[in-house]
Amino acid sequence: MLTLTGIPGVPLVKPGDDLGGLLAAALERAGRAPVDRDVIVVAQKVVSKAEDRFVDLARVKPSARAMELAAELEKDPRIVEVVLSESRRVVRKRPGLLIVEHRLGFVMANGGVDRSNVGPVEEGERVLLLPRDPDASAERLRQQLSRQFRCDLAVIINDSFGRPWRKGIVGVALGAAGIPSLMDMRGRPDLFGRPLEVTVTCFADEISAAASLVMGQAGDGIPAVLVHGLDWSAPPTQASYLVRGAEEDLFR
Amino acid sequence: MLTLTGIPGVPLVKPGDDLGGLLAAALERAGRAPVDRDVIVVAQKVVSKAEDRFVDLARVKPSARAMELAAELEKDPRIVEVVLSESRRVVRKRPGLLIVEHRLGFVMANGGVDRSNVGPVEEGERVLLLPRDPDASAERLRQQLSRQFRCDLAVIINDSFGRPWRKGIVGVALGAAGIPSLMDMRGRPDLFGRPLEVTVTCFADEISAAASLVMGQAGDGIPAVLVHGLDWSAPPTQASYLVRGAEEDLFR
Repeated sequence: MLTLTGIPGVPLVKPGDDLGGLLAAALERAGRAPVDRDVIVVAQKVVSKAEDRFVDLARVKPSARAMELAAELEKDPRIVEVVLSESRRVVRKRPGLLIVEHRLGFVMANGGVDRSNVGPVEEGERVLLLPRDPDASAERLRQQLSRQFRCDLAVIINDSFGRPWRKGIVGVALGAAGIPSLMDMRGRPDLFGRPLEVTVTCFADEISAAASLVMGQAGDGIPAVLVHGLDWSAPPTQASYLVRGAEEDLFR
Repeated sequence: MLTLTGIPGVPLVKPGDDLGGLLAAALERAGRAPVDRDVIVVAQKVVSKAEDRFVDLARVKPSARAMELAAELEKDPRIVEVVLSESRRVVRKRPGLLIVEHRLGFVMANGGVDRSNVGPVEEGERVLLLPRDPDASAERLRQQLSRQFRCDLAVIINDSFGRPWRKGIVGVALGAAGIPSLMDMRGRPDLFGRPLEVTVTCFADEISAAASLVMGQAGDGIPAVLVHGLDWSAPPTQASYLVRGAEEDLFR
Protein backbone atom coordinates (compact mmCIF):
# COMPACT_ATOMS: atom_id res chain seq x y z
CA MET A 1 0.00 0.00 0.00
CA LEU A 2 1.20 3.46 -0.89
CA THR A 3 0.20 6.22 1.53
CA LEU A 4 0.56 9.97 1.09
CA THR A 5 0.13 12.17 4.12
CA GLY A 6 0.11 15.94 4.02
CA ILE A 7 2.45 17.31 6.67
CA PRO A 8 0.27 19.73 8.62
CA GLY A 9 1.33 22.74 10.60
CA VAL A 10 4.26 23.98 8.57
CA PRO A 11 4.25 27.75 9.23
CA LEU A 12 4.40 30.28 6.40
CA VAL A 13 7.98 30.17 5.21
CA LYS A 14 10.12 33.33 5.13
CA PRO A 15 13.49 34.03 3.57
CA GLY A 16 16.29 32.58 5.63
CA ASP A 17 14.06 30.10 7.45
CA ASP A 18 15.51 26.70 8.21
CA LEU A 19 13.05 24.80 6.03
CA GLY A 20 14.41 21.38 7.00
CA GLY A 21 13.99 22.30 10.66
CA LEU A 22 10.43 23.51 10.09
CA LEU A 23 9.54 20.30 8.26
CA ALA A 24 11.16 18.12 10.92
CA ALA A 25 9.27 19.95 13.68
CA ALA A 26 5.98 19.63 11.80
CA LEU A 27 6.56 15.90 11.25
CA GLU A 28 7.36 15.42 14.93
CA ARG A 29 4.32 17.40 16.10
CA ALA A 30 2.15 15.29 13.79
CA GLY A 31 3.66 12.12 15.23
CA ARG A 32 4.87 11.13 11.76
CA ALA A 33 8.45 9.98 12.10
CA PRO A 34 9.55 8.94 8.62
CA VAL A 35 11.34 5.65 8.03
CA ASP A 36 13.85 4.33 5.51
CA ARG A 37 12.77 4.89 1.90
CA ASP A 38 10.05 7.34 2.77
CA VAL A 39 9.96 10.21 0.30
CA ILE A 40 9.28 13.76 1.43
CA VAL A 41 7.88 15.87 -1.37
CA VAL A 42 8.27 19.60 -0.80
CA ALA A 43 6.52 22.29 -2.85
CA GLN A 44 8.89 24.44 -4.91
CA LYS A 45 7.31 27.57 -3.55
CA VAL A 46 8.38 27.06 0.04
CA VAL A 47 11.89 26.07 -1.01
CA SER A 48 12.14 29.25 -3.10
CA LYS A 49 10.86 31.36 -0.21
CA ALA A 50 13.32 29.88 2.28
CA GLU A 51 16.09 30.55 -0.24
CA ASP A 52 14.85 34.12 -0.72
CA ARG A 53 14.30 33.82 -4.44
CA PHE A 54 12.06 36.90 -4.39
CA VAL A 55 12.44 39.67 -6.93
CA ASP A 56 11.00 43.10 -6.15
CA LEU A 57 9.30 44.23 -9.35
CA ALA A 58 9.87 47.91 -8.44
CA ARG A 59 13.59 47.32 -8.96
CA VAL A 60 13.30 45.61 -12.34
CA LYS A 61 14.26 47.67 -15.43
CA PRO A 62 12.77 45.99 -18.50
CA SER A 63 15.08 45.71 -21.48
CA ALA A 64 13.95 46.82 -24.93
CA ARG A 65 13.35 43.17 -25.82
CA ALA A 66 11.22 42.63 -22.71
CA MET A 67 9.19 45.78 -23.49
CA GLU A 68 8.53 44.60 -27.03
CA LEU A 69 7.62 41.06 -25.96
CA ALA A 70 5.40 42.37 -23.14
CA ALA A 71 3.46 44.53 -25.60
CA GLU A 72 3.03 41.60 -27.95
CA LEU A 73 1.95 39.20 -25.18
CA GLU A 74 -0.06 41.73 -23.15
CA LYS A 75 2.03 41.09 -20.07
CA ASP A 76 3.79 43.21 -17.45
CA PRO A 77 7.17 44.19 -18.98
CA ARG A 78 8.88 43.83 -15.62
CA ILE A 79 7.69 40.24 -15.31
CA VAL A 80 8.71 39.49 -18.89
CA GLU A 81 12.16 40.88 -18.04
CA VAL A 82 12.43 38.54 -15.05
CA VAL A 83 11.21 35.58 -17.13
CA LEU A 84 13.80 36.29 -19.84
CA SER A 85 16.56 36.63 -17.25
CA GLU A 86 15.66 33.16 -15.94
CA SER A 87 15.57 31.58 -19.41
CA ARG A 88 17.79 30.34 -22.17
CA ARG A 89 15.26 30.99 -24.88
CA VAL A 90 11.64 31.47 -25.81
CA VAL A 91 10.05 28.22 -27.02
CA ARG A 92 6.53 29.47 -27.83
CA LYS A 93 4.58 32.64 -27.28
CA ARG A 94 1.20 34.16 -27.89
CA PRO A 95 -0.87 36.78 -26.08
CA GLY A 96 -1.03 35.80 -22.41
CA LEU A 97 1.35 32.87 -22.81
CA LEU A 98 5.14 32.73 -22.71
CA ILE A 99 6.77 29.29 -22.74
CA VAL A 100 10.51 29.31 -22.25
CA GLU A 101 13.40 26.97 -21.73
CA HIS A 102 14.46 27.79 -18.19
CA ARG A 103 18.20 28.02 -17.50
CA LEU A 104 17.82 24.66 -15.67
CA GLY A 105 16.51 23.13 -18.91
CA PHE A 106 12.84 22.86 -17.95
CA VAL A 107 10.45 23.94 -20.67
CA MET A 108 7.71 25.74 -18.79
CA ALA A 109 5.32 28.69 -18.80
CA ASN A 110 6.82 31.95 -17.53
CA GLY A 111 10.12 30.34 -16.55
CA GLY A 112 8.60 29.38 -13.22
CA VAL A 113 8.24 33.05 -12.25
CA ASP A 114 5.30 33.10 -9.88
CA ARG A 115 3.09 35.87 -8.57
CA SER A 116 0.58 33.88 -6.56
CA ASN A 117 1.04 33.14 -2.86
CA VAL A 118 4.27 35.12 -2.68
CA GLY A 119 3.21 37.32 0.23
CA PRO A 120 0.70 39.85 1.49
CA VAL A 121 -0.32 42.48 -1.03
CA GLU A 122 1.05 45.25 1.22
CA GLU A 123 4.58 43.88 0.87
CA GLY A 124 4.62 45.26 -2.64
CA GLU A 125 4.83 43.57 -5.97
CA ARG A 126 7.17 40.69 -5.76
CA VAL A 127 7.62 37.58 -7.80
CA LEU A 128 9.25 34.33 -6.82
CA LEU A 129 11.81 32.43 -8.91
CA LEU A 130 12.59 28.72 -8.90
CA PRO A 131 15.30 27.58 -6.48
CA ARG A 132 18.75 28.24 -7.90
CA ASP A 133 19.63 24.53 -7.93
CA PRO A 134 16.64 22.36 -6.97
CA ASP A 135 18.64 19.12 -6.92
CA ALA A 136 21.09 20.66 -4.46
CA SER A 137 18.20 21.99 -2.36
CA ALA A 138 16.67 18.51 -2.32
CA GLU A 139 19.99 16.98 -1.32
CA ARG A 140 20.43 19.43 1.56
CA LEU A 141 16.93 18.69 2.83
CA ARG A 142 17.52 14.96 2.41
CA GLN A 143 20.70 15.06 4.48
CA GLN A 144 19.17 17.21 7.19
CA LEU A 145 15.96 15.19 7.50
CA SER A 146 17.74 11.82 7.26
CA ARG A 147 20.08 12.89 10.07
CA GLN A 148 17.20 14.19 12.16
CA PHE A 149 15.16 11.02 11.87
CA ARG A 150 18.16 8.63 11.70
CA CYS A 151 16.97 6.97 8.53
CA ASP A 152 17.55 7.00 4.83
CA LEU A 153 15.03 9.37 3.25
CA ALA A 154 14.49 10.70 -0.23
CA VAL A 155 13.40 14.25 -1.05
CA ILE A 156 11.64 15.58 -4.14
CA ILE A 157 10.93 19.25 -4.83
CA ASN A 158 7.82 19.45 -6.96
CA ASP A 159 6.02 22.02 -9.05
CA SER A 160 3.07 21.87 -11.44
CA PHE A 161 3.61 22.25 -15.16
CA GLY A 162 1.32 22.51 -18.13
CA ARG A 163 2.11 20.32 -21.09
CA PRO A 164 1.25 20.12 -24.78
CA TRP A 165 -1.81 18.26 -26.05
CA ARG A 166 -3.53 17.83 -22.71
CA LYS A 167 -5.32 20.38 -20.58
CA GLY A 168 -4.40 21.19 -17.01
CA ILE A 169 -1.24 21.19 -14.99
CA VAL A 170 0.29 18.19 -13.26
CA GLY A 171 2.91 17.77 -10.58
CA VAL A 172 6.48 17.26 -11.80
CA ALA A 173 9.85 17.01 -10.08
CA LEU A 174 12.23 19.98 -10.18
CA GLY A 175 14.72 18.46 -7.78
CA ALA A 176 15.35 15.00 -6.40
CA ALA A 177 17.75 13.37 -3.97
CA GLY A 178 18.04 9.81 -2.73
CA ILE A 179 15.72 8.34 -5.35
CA PRO A 180 15.98 7.31 -9.00
CA SER A 181 14.22 9.99 -11.02
CA LEU A 182 13.82 7.54 -13.89
CA MET A 183 13.23 3.79 -13.65
CA ASP A 184 14.60 2.04 -16.67
CA MET A 185 12.69 -1.19 -17.25
CA ARG A 186 13.94 -1.78 -20.80
CA GLY A 187 14.87 -5.36 -21.51
CA ARG A 188 13.05 -6.95 -18.57
CA PRO A 189 10.77 -9.65 -19.89
CA ASP A 190 7.05 -8.99 -19.81
CA LEU A 191 4.56 -11.42 -18.31
CA PHE A 192 4.85 -13.68 -21.33
CA GLY A 193 8.64 -13.62 -21.58
CA ARG A 194 8.81 -11.17 -24.46
CA PRO A 195 11.24 -8.32 -23.71
CA LEU A 196 9.52 -5.04 -22.92
CA GLU A 197 10.49 -2.66 -25.67
CA VAL A 198 10.77 0.74 -24.05
CA THR A 199 9.55 1.34 -20.55
CA VAL A 200 11.40 4.08 -18.83
CA THR A 201 9.10 5.40 -16.16
CA CYS A 202 9.49 8.85 -14.76
CA PHE A 203 9.31 7.76 -11.14
CA ALA A 204 10.02 11.24 -9.75
CA ASP A 205 7.26 12.87 -11.79
CA GLU A 206 4.73 10.21 -10.85
CA ILE A 207 5.56 10.73 -7.18
CA SER A 208 5.32 14.51 -7.68
CA ALA A 209 1.91 14.20 -9.31
CA ALA A 210 0.67 11.96 -6.50
CA ALA A 211 1.89 14.46 -3.90
CA SER A 212 0.21 17.31 -5.78
CA LEU A 213 -3.12 15.59 -5.19
CA VAL A 214 -2.54 15.96 -1.47
CA MET A 215 -1.07 19.44 -1.56
CA GLY A 216 -4.22 20.60 -3.27
CA GLN A 217 -4.27 23.99 -4.76
CA ALA A 218 -4.26 26.40 -1.82
CA GLY A 219 -0.66 27.42 -2.48
CA ASP A 220 1.44 26.48 0.50
CA GLY A 221 -1.45 25.36 2.68
CA ILE A 222 0.09 21.89 2.64
CA PRO A 223 3.63 22.44 1.39
CA ALA A 224 5.00 18.96 2.04
CA VAL A 225 3.81 15.39 1.75
CA LEU A 226 5.20 12.23 3.27
CA VAL A 227 5.08 9.31 0.83
CA HIS A 228 5.39 5.85 2.33
CA GLY A 229 5.44 2.48 0.64
CA LEU A 230 7.59 2.94 -2.45
CA ASP A 231 10.53 0.75 -3.28
CA TRP A 232 13.30 0.88 -5.85
CA SER A 233 16.58 -0.79 -6.68
CA ALA A 234 18.17 1.63 -9.16
CA PRO A 235 20.72 4.15 -7.87
CA PRO A 236 19.54 7.69 -7.15
CA THR A 237 19.50 10.16 -10.02
CA GLN A 238 18.82 13.88 -9.87
CA ALA A 239 15.81 15.53 -11.45
CA SER A 240 18.11 17.45 -13.81
CA TYR A 241 18.56 14.08 -15.51
CA LEU A 242 14.90 14.22 -16.55
CA VAL A 243 15.47 17.08 -18.94
CA ARG A 244 15.49 15.84 -22.51
CA GLY A 245 18.22 17.60 -24.44
CA ALA A 246 17.07 19.96 -27.20
CA GLU A 247 18.97 17.80 -29.72
CA GLU A 248 16.82 14.72 -29.01
CA ASP A 249 13.60 16.68 -28.59
CA LEU A 250 11.13 16.90 -31.46
CA PHE A 251 8.99 19.66 -29.98
CA ARG A 252 10.96 22.87 -29.59
CA MET B 1 -4.36 10.67 4.01
CA LEU B 2 -4.44 9.32 0.51
CA THR B 3 -3.98 5.58 0.14
CA LEU B 4 -3.41 3.56 -3.01
CA THR B 5 -3.80 -0.18 -2.83
CA GLY B 6 -3.02 -2.53 -5.67
CA ILE B 7 -5.91 -4.94 -6.17
CA PRO B 8 -4.27 -8.38 -6.06
CA GLY B 9 -5.41 -11.58 -7.62
CA VAL B 10 -7.03 -10.30 -10.79
CA PRO B 11 -6.57 -13.20 -13.22
CA LEU B 12 -5.13 -12.72 -16.70
CA VAL B 13 -7.90 -11.08 -18.65
CA LYS B 14 -9.19 -12.66 -21.87
CA PRO B 15 -11.49 -11.33 -24.58
CA GLY B 16 -15.09 -11.38 -23.46
CA ASP B 17 -14.27 -11.57 -19.77
CA ASP B 18 -16.52 -9.68 -17.39
CA LEU B 19 -13.80 -7.29 -16.20
CA GLY B 20 -16.04 -5.55 -13.68
CA GLY B 21 -16.92 -8.92 -12.19
CA LEU B 22 -13.28 -9.97 -12.02
CA LEU B 23 -12.36 -6.72 -10.29
CA ALA B 24 -15.26 -6.99 -7.85
CA ALA B 25 -14.31 -10.57 -6.97
CA ALA B 26 -10.67 -9.58 -6.47
CA LEU B 27 -11.67 -6.67 -4.24
CA GLU B 28 -13.90 -8.95 -2.20
CA ARG B 29 -11.26 -11.65 -1.84
CA ALA B 30 -8.80 -9.00 -0.67
CA GLY B 31 -11.34 -7.73 1.86
CA ARG B 32 -11.25 -4.31 0.26
CA ALA B 33 -14.82 -3.13 -0.12
CA PRO B 34 -14.65 0.33 -1.67
CA VAL B 35 -16.66 3.21 -0.23
CA ASP B 36 -18.18 6.42 -1.64
CA ARG B 37 -15.68 8.52 -3.59
CA ASP B 38 -13.11 5.79 -3.88
CA VAL B 39 -11.51 5.76 -7.30
CA ILE B 40 -10.68 2.52 -9.05
CA VAL B 41 -7.92 2.96 -11.59
CA VAL B 42 -7.79 0.22 -14.20
CA ALA B 43 -4.92 -0.32 -16.62
CA GLN B 44 -5.84 0.28 -20.26
CA LYS B 45 -4.34 -3.03 -21.23
CA VAL B 46 -6.81 -5.18 -19.31
CA VAL B 47 -9.75 -3.10 -20.53
CA SER B 48 -8.56 -3.54 -24.13
CA LYS B 49 -8.13 -7.28 -23.60
CA ALA B 50 -11.60 -7.73 -22.12
CA GLU B 51 -12.99 -5.76 -25.07
CA ASP B 52 -11.01 -7.96 -27.51
CA ARG B 53 -9.12 -5.10 -29.09
CA PHE B 54 -6.56 -7.54 -30.48
CA VAL B 55 -5.38 -7.37 -34.05
CA ASP B 56 -3.73 -10.41 -35.61
CA LEU B 57 -0.74 -9.10 -37.55
CA ALA B 58 -0.91 -12.02 -40.00
CA ARG B 59 -4.18 -10.55 -41.29
CA VAL B 60 -2.93 -6.99 -41.75
CA LYS B 61 -2.21 -5.84 -45.31
CA PRO B 62 0.03 -2.76 -45.16
CA SER B 63 -0.93 0.06 -47.50
CA ALA B 64 1.65 1.69 -49.77
CA ARG B 65 1.84 4.58 -47.31
CA ALA B 66 2.44 2.23 -44.37
CA MET B 67 5.17 0.41 -46.34
CA GLU B 68 6.91 3.66 -47.13
CA LEU B 69 6.66 4.98 -43.58
CA ALA B 70 7.80 1.64 -42.14
CA ALA B 71 10.92 1.69 -44.31
CA GLU B 72 11.67 5.25 -43.25
CA LEU B 73 11.11 4.55 -39.56
CA GLU B 74 12.59 1.03 -39.55
CA LYS B 75 9.38 -0.46 -38.21
CA ASP B 76 7.19 -3.45 -39.04
CA PRO B 77 4.92 -2.29 -41.92
CA ARG B 78 1.99 -4.24 -40.48
CA ILE B 79 2.29 -2.40 -37.18
CA VAL B 80 2.61 0.94 -39.00
CA GLU B 81 -0.56 0.07 -40.90
CA VAL B 82 -2.41 -0.61 -37.64
CA VAL B 83 -1.06 2.62 -36.10
CA LEU B 84 -2.21 4.65 -39.10
CA SER B 85 -5.63 3.03 -39.02
CA GLU B 86 -5.98 4.13 -35.38
CA SER B 87 -4.85 7.70 -36.07
CA ARG B 88 -5.99 10.99 -37.51
CA ARG B 89 -2.53 12.11 -38.49
CA VAL B 90 1.19 11.78 -37.93
CA VAL B 91 2.48 14.47 -35.56
CA ARG B 92 6.22 13.62 -35.54
CA LYS B 93 8.34 10.79 -36.84
CA ARG B 94 11.90 9.64 -36.97
CA PRO B 95 13.53 6.21 -37.12
CA GLY B 96 12.08 4.09 -34.34
CA LEU B 97 9.53 6.72 -33.31
CA LEU B 98 6.05 7.45 -34.63
CA ILE B 99 3.96 10.00 -32.74
CA VAL B 100 0.40 10.34 -33.94
CA GLU B 101 -2.85 11.97 -33.05
CA HIS B 102 -5.02 9.02 -32.15
CA ARG B 103 -8.61 9.06 -33.40
CA LEU B 104 -9.62 9.79 -29.78
CA GLY B 105 -7.47 12.95 -29.87
CA PHE B 106 -4.60 11.71 -27.72
CA VAL B 107 -1.17 12.59 -29.08
CA MET B 108 0.90 9.52 -28.32
CA ALA B 109 3.60 7.18 -29.57
CA ASN B 110 2.38 4.43 -31.91
CA GLY B 111 -1.26 5.36 -31.45
CA GLY B 112 -1.39 3.21 -28.34
CA VAL B 113 -0.77 0.06 -30.38
CA ASP B 114 0.98 -2.27 -28.00
CA ARG B 115 2.97 -5.46 -28.48
CA SER B 116 4.06 -6.16 -24.92
CA ASN B 117 2.08 -8.35 -22.54
CA VAL B 118 -0.51 -9.15 -25.17
CA GLY B 119 -0.29 -12.91 -24.86
CA PRO B 120 1.95 -15.95 -25.07
CA VAL B 121 4.35 -15.97 -28.01
CA GLU B 122 2.76 -19.16 -29.38
CA GLU B 123 -0.55 -17.36 -29.92
CA GLY B 124 1.07 -15.62 -32.85
CA GLU B 125 1.84 -12.02 -33.48
CA ARG B 126 -0.90 -9.87 -32.12
CA VAL B 127 -1.09 -6.27 -31.09
CA LEU B 128 -3.53 -4.60 -28.79
CA LEU B 129 -5.41 -1.36 -29.51
CA LEU B 130 -6.81 1.17 -27.06
CA PRO B 131 -10.41 0.62 -25.95
CA ARG B 132 -12.84 1.90 -28.57
CA ASP B 133 -14.32 4.48 -26.18
CA PRO B 134 -12.40 4.60 -22.88
CA ASP B 135 -14.84 7.02 -21.23
CA ALA B 136 -17.71 4.66 -21.99
CA SER B 137 -15.68 1.71 -20.70
CA ALA B 138 -14.97 3.65 -17.50
CA GLU B 139 -18.64 4.50 -17.13
CA ARG B 140 -19.71 0.86 -17.56
CA LEU B 141 -17.20 -0.27 -14.94
CA ARG B 142 -18.27 2.56 -12.64
CA GLN B 143 -21.91 1.54 -12.83
CA GLN B 144 -21.19 -2.13 -12.35
CA LEU B 145 -18.81 -1.66 -9.41
CA SER B 146 -20.95 1.03 -7.75
CA ARG B 147 -23.94 -1.29 -7.93
CA GLN B 148 -21.94 -4.24 -6.64
CA PHE B 149 -20.57 -2.35 -3.63
CA ARG B 150 -23.66 -0.15 -3.12
CA CYS B 151 -21.68 3.06 -3.15
CA ASP B 152 -20.72 5.91 -5.44
CA LEU B 153 -17.39 5.06 -7.06
CA ALA B 154 -15.29 6.69 -9.74
CA VAL B 155 -13.33 4.81 -12.38
CA ILE B 156 -10.29 5.90 -14.36
CA ILE B 157 -8.70 3.92 -17.17
CA ASN B 158 -5.02 4.80 -17.26
CA ASP B 159 -2.09 4.36 -19.60
CA SER B 160 1.47 5.67 -19.63
CA PHE B 161 2.51 8.29 -22.15
CA GLY B 162 5.79 9.90 -23.05
CA ARG B 163 5.85 13.66 -23.37
CA PRO B 164 8.02 16.36 -24.89
CA TRP B 165 10.93 17.92 -22.99
CA ARG B 166 11.08 15.39 -20.17
CA LYS B 167 12.34 11.83 -20.21
CA GLY B 168 10.26 8.84 -19.22
CA ILE B 169 6.63 7.92 -19.37
CA VAL B 170 4.00 8.87 -16.80
CA GLY B 171 0.51 7.64 -16.04
CA VAL B 172 -2.33 9.54 -17.74
CA ALA B 173 -6.08 9.06 -17.94
CA LEU B 174 -7.62 7.67 -21.13
CA GLY B 175 -11.09 7.36 -19.68
CA ALA B 176 -12.85 8.67 -16.60
CA ALA B 177 -16.28 8.37 -15.00
CA GLY B 178 -17.69 9.81 -11.83
CA ILE B 179 -14.84 12.25 -11.23
CA PRO B 180 -13.86 15.67 -12.56
CA SER B 181 -10.97 15.10 -14.96
CA LEU B 182 -9.93 18.73 -14.55
CA MET B 183 -10.21 20.84 -11.40
CA ASP B 184 -10.56 24.47 -12.27
CA MET B 185 -9.21 26.62 -9.44
CA ARG B 186 -9.07 29.86 -11.40
CA GLY B 187 -10.33 32.82 -9.48
CA ARG B 188 -10.15 31.34 -6.00
CA PRO B 189 -8.07 33.64 -3.83
CA ASP B 190 -4.63 32.45 -2.83
CA LEU B 191 -3.42 32.42 0.78
CA PHE B 192 -2.95 36.18 0.69
CA GLY B 193 -6.24 37.05 -0.96
CA ARG B 194 -4.81 37.65 -4.44
CA PRO B 195 -6.74 35.72 -7.07
CA LEU B 196 -4.89 32.69 -8.41
CA GLU B 197 -4.24 33.41 -12.05
CA VAL B 198 -4.48 30.07 -13.79
CA THR B 199 -4.65 26.86 -11.88
CA VAL B 200 -6.47 24.16 -13.71
CA THR B 201 -5.19 20.90 -12.33
CA CYS B 202 -5.46 17.70 -14.29
CA PHE B 203 -6.92 15.69 -11.45
CA ALA B 204 -7.45 12.55 -13.55
CA ASP B 205 -3.86 12.50 -14.79
CA GLU B 206 -2.44 13.03 -11.31
CA ILE B 207 -4.53 10.13 -10.03
CA SER B 208 -3.42 8.04 -13.01
CA ALA B 209 0.24 8.80 -12.33
CA ALA B 210 -0.16 7.92 -8.66
CA ALA B 211 -1.82 4.62 -9.58
CA SER B 212 0.98 3.87 -12.06
CA LEU B 213 3.42 3.91 -9.15
CA VAL B 214 1.50 1.03 -7.63
CA MET B 215 0.86 -0.88 -10.84
CA GLY B 216 4.59 -0.97 -11.45
CA GLN B 217 5.84 -1.99 -14.77
CA ALA B 218 5.19 -5.72 -14.98
CA GLY B 219 2.37 -5.27 -17.48
CA ASP B 220 -0.85 -6.43 -15.91
CA GLY B 221 0.68 -7.91 -12.80
CA ILE B 222 -1.33 -5.33 -10.84
CA PRO B 223 -3.93 -4.11 -13.32
CA ALA B 224 -6.08 -2.09 -10.91
CA VAL B 225 -5.57 0.19 -7.95
CA LEU B 226 -8.02 1.36 -5.31
CA VAL B 227 -7.51 5.02 -4.43
CA HIS B 228 -9.03 6.19 -1.16
CA GLY B 229 -9.03 9.63 0.40
CA LEU B 230 -9.69 12.02 -2.48
CA ASP B 231 -12.41 14.63 -2.45
CA TRP B 232 -13.86 16.97 -5.02
CA SER B 233 -16.80 19.27 -5.54
CA ALA B 234 -16.81 19.85 -9.30
CA PRO B 235 -19.14 17.76 -11.45
CA PRO B 236 -17.70 14.73 -13.23
CA THR B 237 -16.08 15.25 -16.62
CA GLN B 238 -14.85 12.63 -19.01
CA ALA B 239 -11.19 12.17 -19.93
CA SER B 240 -11.98 13.13 -23.53
CA TYR B 241 -12.33 16.64 -22.14
CA LEU B 242 -8.59 16.61 -21.36
CA VAL B 243 -7.65 16.65 -25.02
CA ARG B 244 -6.51 20.12 -26.02
CA GLY B 245 -7.86 20.90 -29.46
CA ALA B 246 -5.34 21.23 -32.26
CA GLU B 247 -6.45 24.83 -32.77
CA GLU B 248 -5.36 25.89 -29.26
CA ASP B 249 -2.27 23.71 -29.22
CA LEU B 250 1.12 25.23 -29.98
CA PHE B 251 2.99 21.98 -30.37
CA ARG B 252 1.67 19.98 -33.30
